Amino acid sequence: MPVNLAPPNPDQLLPVKGIALGVAEAGIKKANRKDLLVMRLGDKARVAGVFTQNRFCAAPVSLCKTHLGAGKGIRALVVNTGNANAGTGEDGLNRARRTCGEAAKLLSCAEEQVLPFSTGVILEPLPVEKIIAGLPAAVADLKENNWFNAAQAIMTTDIVPKAASKQISLGGALVTITGIAKGSGMIHPNMATMLGYVATDAAVSQPLLEAMVRHAADRSFNCITVDGDTSTNDSFMLIATGEAGAAEITDGASREYAALRDAVVDVAQMLAQAIVRDGEGATKFMTIAVEGGASGAECRQVAYAIAHSPLVKTAFFASDPNLGRILAAIGYAGIADLDVDKIKLYLGDVLVAENGGRAASYQEQDGQRVMRESEIAVRVVLGRGAAAATVWTCDFSYDYVKINAEYRS
Amino acid sequence: MPVNLAPPNPDQLLPVKGIALGVAEAGIKKANRKDLLVMRLGDKARVAGVFTQNRFCAAPVSLCKTHLGAGKGIRALVVNTGNANAGTGEDGLNRARRTCGEAAKLLSCAEEQVLPFSTGVILEPLPVEKIIAGLPAAVADLKENNWFNAAQAIMTTDIVPKAASKQISLGGALVTITGIAKGSGMIHPNMATMLGYVATDAAVSQPLLEAMVRHAADRSFNCITVDGDTSTNDSFMLIATGEAGAAEITDGASREYAALRDAVVDVAQMLAQAIVRDGEGATKFMTIAVEGGASGAECRQVAYAIAHSPLVKTAFFASDPNLGRILAAIGYAGIADLDVDKIKLYLGDVLVAENGGRAASYQEQDGQRVMRESEIAVRVVLGRGAAAATVWTCDFSYDYVKINAEYRS
Repeated sequence: MPVNLAPPNPDQLLPVKGIALGVAEAGIKKANRKDLLVMRLGDKARVAGVFTQNRFCAAPVSLCKTHLGAGKGIRALVVNTGNANAGTGEDGLNRARRTCGEAAKLLSCAEEQVLPFSTGVILEPLPVEKIIAGLPAAVADLKENNWFNAAQAIMTTDIVPKAASKQISLGGALVTITGIAKGSGMIHPNMATMLGYVATDAAVSQPLLEAMVRHAADRSFNCITVDGDTSTNDSFMLIATGEAGAAEITDGASREYAALRDAVVDVAQMLAQAIVRDGEGATKFMTIAVEGGASGAECRQVAYAIAHSPLVKTAFFASDPNLGRILAAIGYAGIADLDVDKIKLYLGDVLVAENGGRAASYQEQDGQRVMRESEIAVRVVLGRGAAAATVWTCDFSYDYVKINAEYRS
Repeated sequence: MPVNLAPPNPDQLLPVKGIALGVAEAGIKKANRKDLLVMRLGDKARVAGVFTQNRFCAAPVSLCKTHLGAGKGIRALVVNTGNANAGTGEDGLNRARRTCGEAAKLLSCAEEQVLPFSTGVILEPLPVEKIIAGLPAAVADLKENNWFNAAQAIMTTDIVPKAASKQISLGGALVTITGIAKGSGMIHPNMATMLGYVATDAAVSQPLLEAMVRHAADRSFNCITVDGDTSTNDSFMLIATGEAGAAEITDGASREYAALRDAVVDVAQMLAQAIVRDGEGATKFMTIAVEGGASGAECRQVAYAIAHSPLVKTAFFASDPNLGRILAAIGYAGIADLDVDKIKLYLGDVLVAENGGRAASYQEQDGQRVMRESEIAVRVVLGRGAAAATVWTCDFSYDYVKINAEYRS
């Protein structure tokens, strides 16, 4: 069951002026479930995105990059679940192109103005005819107040739909930021998560929008892991429709840029953490904070070594303070000149280890108390510098094995 | 249950002249089980070892390096299970020293001539008084024909004791090589495995013995993974007692050196593969062979990405040919300029993927047939060069989670 994650309240998901969403049941993998989403953008909208660094990136990821690079402006996004269109070669690219072409006809724009996204099983042909047959219903459903249904339509093994909204005042205008994401397994984003979409009605220049999406990804989707598997389809898109009436942001040093950027980070973090809370089989939510490092990179390296360790994750599942496993993970993280005598390890507020061994003050019952909680903070102080990094992850349970052993059945 | 791994036949484990083994029940963690092993070496014996690269290496690992470096010759090895003496700081070193000192008294040698080894829970004080109290019984049990009991005495979560023997003719003399190993979880050796000991009665010069142990480790214990967790206590020791009557090997280019080296590799590989077959919760044994790489390092990188992927491992557990997960792992292995169109993926004898997508000849039923077997070969051809690497691993089952959630209870 998801860890402290309720479905979003549809009434609290704020529409974003200039973006309409429509969903449909295309029957791609299973009957009677929404599996197709169309997002239509207004004329002033700008889009920036970051994508998986998996070399076996999916056909829609390749096509997204081509269409974004074409510079004609993006007018629509089409997302299907049930099939990833990854590991599908040239034929997969053609099927993604056909999806864009058919959507473009329905929306009266060019094929290059449509971005395609897919998620689901890898290495199977995209059922493009079913998608094309479902597009008219999705287009007929287009409306601004449709974010909750959109969040549902992009789910695969997710139990809970993921969406978040925020409003800020920007130069006197009220600006909205709303986002949705999906993901539960194959989660170790490297540039972005499985699928994440954040839209705002603020106006932002293209270079600043691109800087903002990278900034937000590095503080949200790039800080989570469920199982250490980087997906072939990770995509995180930031959309600025420019229809809130706020002046366009063109200065990266401005207060307005910082305010919008921070609000986008907030929404992206809520979505990224929701993915971990709904991680396959998750029963605990862990925050792994590493500080005192010589660089942010080495802090992330240590945090991910802990977050990826199946031994650490099963100990958390069991609420067992078998904390030597965390020390072992720190030790094999790959920092060649790490001085273990300088390291401090905290579990919640409890000092567990220092001077290369167990802290004199540590008592098993204190570790046990923290371990029983559903949200657990692990803090590692490296004693090497001033850099820090935080990673969010979940535990490893019987249900993770069950979900992934039965994924295709 | 272990995958195609029977306990060794005690009668087929050949004694090695010049090394006697004794076991005892010291009651370190559990009552009524052998948990202490002493190995006594003859006067001519030489020892070389490789150790974990985990920065949180255990106190006995540090002390082993010191004692090997002291150059006084090694006369005994003492191994306890139930406690790793890792993450124990200066106090842990003192306890390891006391173990060596007490063993030295009983065996009439110097403290520096004893090598200590520990395996078990990390971050808890070594119960050194229990070990010292158990030493006399282990010493009283010393005999050359005692390898099976020794293999049992070093087990922790292992289900099956691991031992192997081999004889070769070396310059007219019959030479024996016998080894034991333990390990089941926290297996991703980086220089060596949890604990492995291979002894021969051949005579080998110290520099060649050191070259041989590294050579064997790189072809055996350094090619396996169960869960990707590198232990704090990994140690692989090669002992040459020099008592077979064969001439001392002093030339690294000699036929004798190559023959002995290859026999040591054979024994080490049998032990390393036994560890994977007895991997925690294992139901399948997988050989991941990557060839056509630009370097051995990148082949290992790809092989380990596949072997570590929880998604790949749960698919094998389920006998589900969800082979896109293997492509995804190849894609995120970290080879920046990998051309996915050149890759071929085989499952057993079945070509699964080529030209960036599913092979035209591939049929689900063929993949299904291979997946149902208990021993499965995955072969990846990178199409970049002539280098190759092989890694052995096991699947990821409910029992892995169960064993590690309940490890300390």
